[in-house]
Amino acid sequence: MSDDELLDRSLTETAALVADRRVSPVELVEAALRRIESIEQTNAYISVFADDALAVARASETMIAAGHRLGPLHGVPIALKDNISVRGRRTTAGSKVLADHHPEADATVTERLRSAGAIIIGKTNLHEFAWGGTSANPHYGFVTNPWDTSRMPGGSSGGSGVAVATRSCFGALGTDTGGSIRLPSALNGVTGLRPTIGRVSNAGVVPLAWSMDTVGPMARTAADCAVMFGVLAGHDPADAGSADRSGEDYTRDLDLGVDGLRIGLIEGYSLHHVQAPVEKAVRGALSRLDDAGARVVDVVVDDIEGNISAQLTVEAAEPSTYHQRWLRERPDDYGDDVRLLLEAGELLLATQYLQAQRYRALLRRQTLAALARADVLACPTLPFTATALGEVEVEIDEGVREDMLSAIMQFTGLPSLTGLPAISVPCGFDDAGLPIGVQLIGKPFAEATLLRVAAAFQRCTDFHTRVPPLVASA
Amino acid sequence: MSDDELLDRSLTETAALVADRRVSPVELVEAALRRIESIEQTNAYISVFADDALAVARASETMIAAGHRLGPLHGVPIALKDNISVRGRRTTAGSKVLADHHPEADATVTERLRSAGAIIIGKTNLHEFAWGGTSANPHYGFVTNPWDTSRMPGGSSGGSGVAVATRSCFGALGTDTGGSIRLPSALNGVTGLRPTIGRVSNAGVVPLAWSMDTVGPMARTAADCAVMFGVLAGHDPADAGSADRSGEDYTRDLDLGVDGLRIGLIEGYSLHHVQAPVEKAVRGALSRLDDAGARVVDVVVDDIEGNISAQLTVEAAEPSTYHQRWLRERPDDYGDDVRLLLEAGELLLATQYLQAQRYRALLRRQTLAALARADVLACPTLPFTATALGEVEVEIDEGVREDMLSAIMQFTGLPSLTGLPAISVPCGFDDAGLPIGVQLIGKPFAEATLLRVAAAFQRCTDFHTRVPPLVASA
Repeated sequence: MSDDELLDRSLTETAALVADRRVSPVELVEAALRRIESIEQTNAYISVFADDALAVARASETMIAAGHRLGPLHGVPIALKDNISVRGRRTTAGSKVLADHHPEADATVTERLRSAGAIIIGKTNLHEFAWGGTSANPHYGFVTNPWDTSRMPGGSSGGSGVAVATRSCFGALGTDTGGSIRLPSALNGVTGLRPTIGRVSNAGVVPLAWSMDTVGPMARTAADCAVMFGVLAGHDPADAGSADRSGEDYTRDLDLGVDGLRIGLIEGYSLHHVQAPVEKAVRGALSRLDDAGARVVDVVVDDIEGNISAQLTVEAAEPSTYHQRWLRERPDDYGDDVRLLLEAGELLLATQYLQAQRYRALLRRQTLAALARADVLACPTLPFTATALGEVEVEIDEGVREDMLSAIMQFTGLPSLTGLPAISVPCGFDDAGLPIGVQLIGKPFAEATLLRVAAAFQRCTDFHTRVPPLVASA
Repeated sequence: MSDDELLDRSLTETAALVADRRVSPVELVEAALRRIESIEQTNAYISVFADDALAVARASETMIAAGHRLGPLHGVPIALKDNISVRGRRTTAGSKVLADHHPEADATVTERLRSAGAIIIGKTNLHEFAWGGTSANPHYGFVTNPWDTSRMPGGSSGGSGVAVATRSCFGALGTDTGGSIRLPSALNGVTGLRPTIGRVSNAGVVPLAWSMDTVGPMARTAADCAVMFGVLAGHDPADAGSADRSGEDYTRDLDLGVDGLRIGLIEGYSLHHVQAPVEKAVRGALSRLDDAGARVVDVVVDDIEGNISAQLTVEAAEPSTYHQRWLRERPDDYGDDVRLLLEAGELLLATQYLQAQRYRALLRRQTLAALARADVLACPTLPFTATALGEVEVEIDEGVREDMLSAIMQFTGLPSLTGLPAISVPCGFDDAGLPIGVQLIGKPFAEATLLRVAAAFQRCTDFHTRVPPLVASA
């Protein structure tokens, strides 16, 4: 079987074929390793576990032949963002500070993936300490976008986005503070879920801003995310922020469709200050969902405007606190952009941070009120498509250049600040062939509804099946 | 029946007599109103609801005669600290800023007390906005200690402490941020419970530092606190911080005794830096509990030393945020001491606040580990007995004068920072006849254990039955 045949199938299909012994985990890992090599110019991986992955693949093959099935990911190659601990393996968090950090234990999510049979194929590149919406990694190189390698892949889980888009793995873990799963999902044309805060354990994950940090799955389809998410979700006593409730079977509602569901647009926000092709693609998505039986309704979130300022405040103050000691002791081990952000965070007053926290409580109340009138809220994942590598400004309204760091969080900040779950789903391409994502936001712990809407959308569209030129042309 | 006869009984006994129609709510209210008048010099009350209370007492009498029983507090006069809303009644929070504040709705706790049949007799005096461990209220006068009216009653729920100690009500609500229920309980010789954070609703209560604020009961005995607490505890959707679990019957375990229970002393902390009479009284209490079958064990909390600094930081930053706008618009409506504290809080950096929050998480982990080796922890409620009114320093170690604001939080800060429940129980008097309290700290939501230990202690001691000279001599 060719690498394209092996790797182009979704995680869900592949896992079924592996379970039926029609595809071998060894073939999959070998194909994935070749693919990783062929996309080396994207810098998507910091570490590749070739020997380990092959050894585990052979063992998986033996176990499956002997009638064992560890779980829904048995024998399937998965990649992890490199701020997630793997026991005894380097976990850099994209930093020089942790360049030689070898954790003594797996992160809870790593352990859960392994228990479900996943084969860890490697660790993906990210922004330094997962910070910065636009900056390149000064230590492990620019990650490039496989749809146009002169463009950025988004961040901070850029490596995971590229790893999934290039079919070098069947799914990857990202982490999302202000948008770090959803942004690279949108910019690389993959599907990425930011869970409800507390739904997935953060134990063993290097923090950025702990009141917003969460791990989540990135994969090619909503169904694939649902399978991974079912493995990841659940209570973890090792994480004080973990919600004390059990996970669910998130694949259960995937085929229910959207008939009768209400999709809310926040007035003056959901389709405002957006590049024209992005607006067109998102309107197209709404129209498809309307055709499928959903109803688009207008909702109000009075104080939505404060969201970017609040997000910048929280994302400055919390990382600056976590990094305070290293920043004193080894300032030169930080890249200039992240050091500057951390130093700026140290100037914030406690009252500024706490006013942002009070705003979050207000925003959550208002958003929950809006979600009483809609099943999900919809908006673009971000207001523009991938910009040139290294660019720090972006043009959204014609002729107006603005700072990218705040512009990029225009839509992803709402779930991050409120703790609500959100998913980014491929919904189109601009004229240059760059992917566009629509973001759906759900009620607390209602990830199943988000996955259900996304799956319904993917049944009547093919945006998620397209292969980026870097791979297609190989 | 004389006022002394009517008022000297505990809440538990009185409620039973009222239910049996052997005592009338009208008699009780009339006696309480006379008592309030006779202790006017203590400044314990800001508002007294004489007409309302009498009208409700008459109605209660009628209902009880007709066979109704609203709940365990039916017909019993209760006082509320004046930062707790009563619909349409002035709720000043001890401030000039809210001098004309008439809330449109009851606080959830007010509503719960009323549903259980309580008669609200009045609103008690407190520090301005419940802030300051030692300061007098500049707008509503010094509250004075009925054991020696030249001394302070502690705060911020000083009025509630005095109201209970003088038998002008059968129980009172206090609020506790850094110790505001437990300190006046100890200094006035009453029993006061700070619940687990989130156990009692804060909806309708003027906040001080919202990450530590909680309402709780103050009464003459642990059994009385248990009855009130059973009424107060429970989930409240109107308070985002409310724990989503139901209350319990907290009187259930009161008679179980302490046989086999382990009482932990934190090494280098629980009996250190304490005035000699306080140490002697607490050691005496431990010895009584040991006689009753409990076992005293040593436990370790490695980083206990940071607790005062963390508490001062949180109690500076959060109130300064809440008051920021009023402080700009009406600075002259604040007393000098509270304005200074709030202005100082505005200088704190976000990283300082967040390091304090990180310390709290560490302290909680360490304290929970200690509580895995003990059922409750014991220490004094505060290291000294009541000082002179207006005093801002205190002598704990002979010849060393130190700042009272930090000294007073030496022991109450641990539960406040960690969110754990704690109770202050009368355990002795110094040579000047001033009351001393022992603080017991429990596991999350294990208030029943605290009440059980306190009730066992009160069965073999009579410190909680003594009447302050101000009342005894009247």
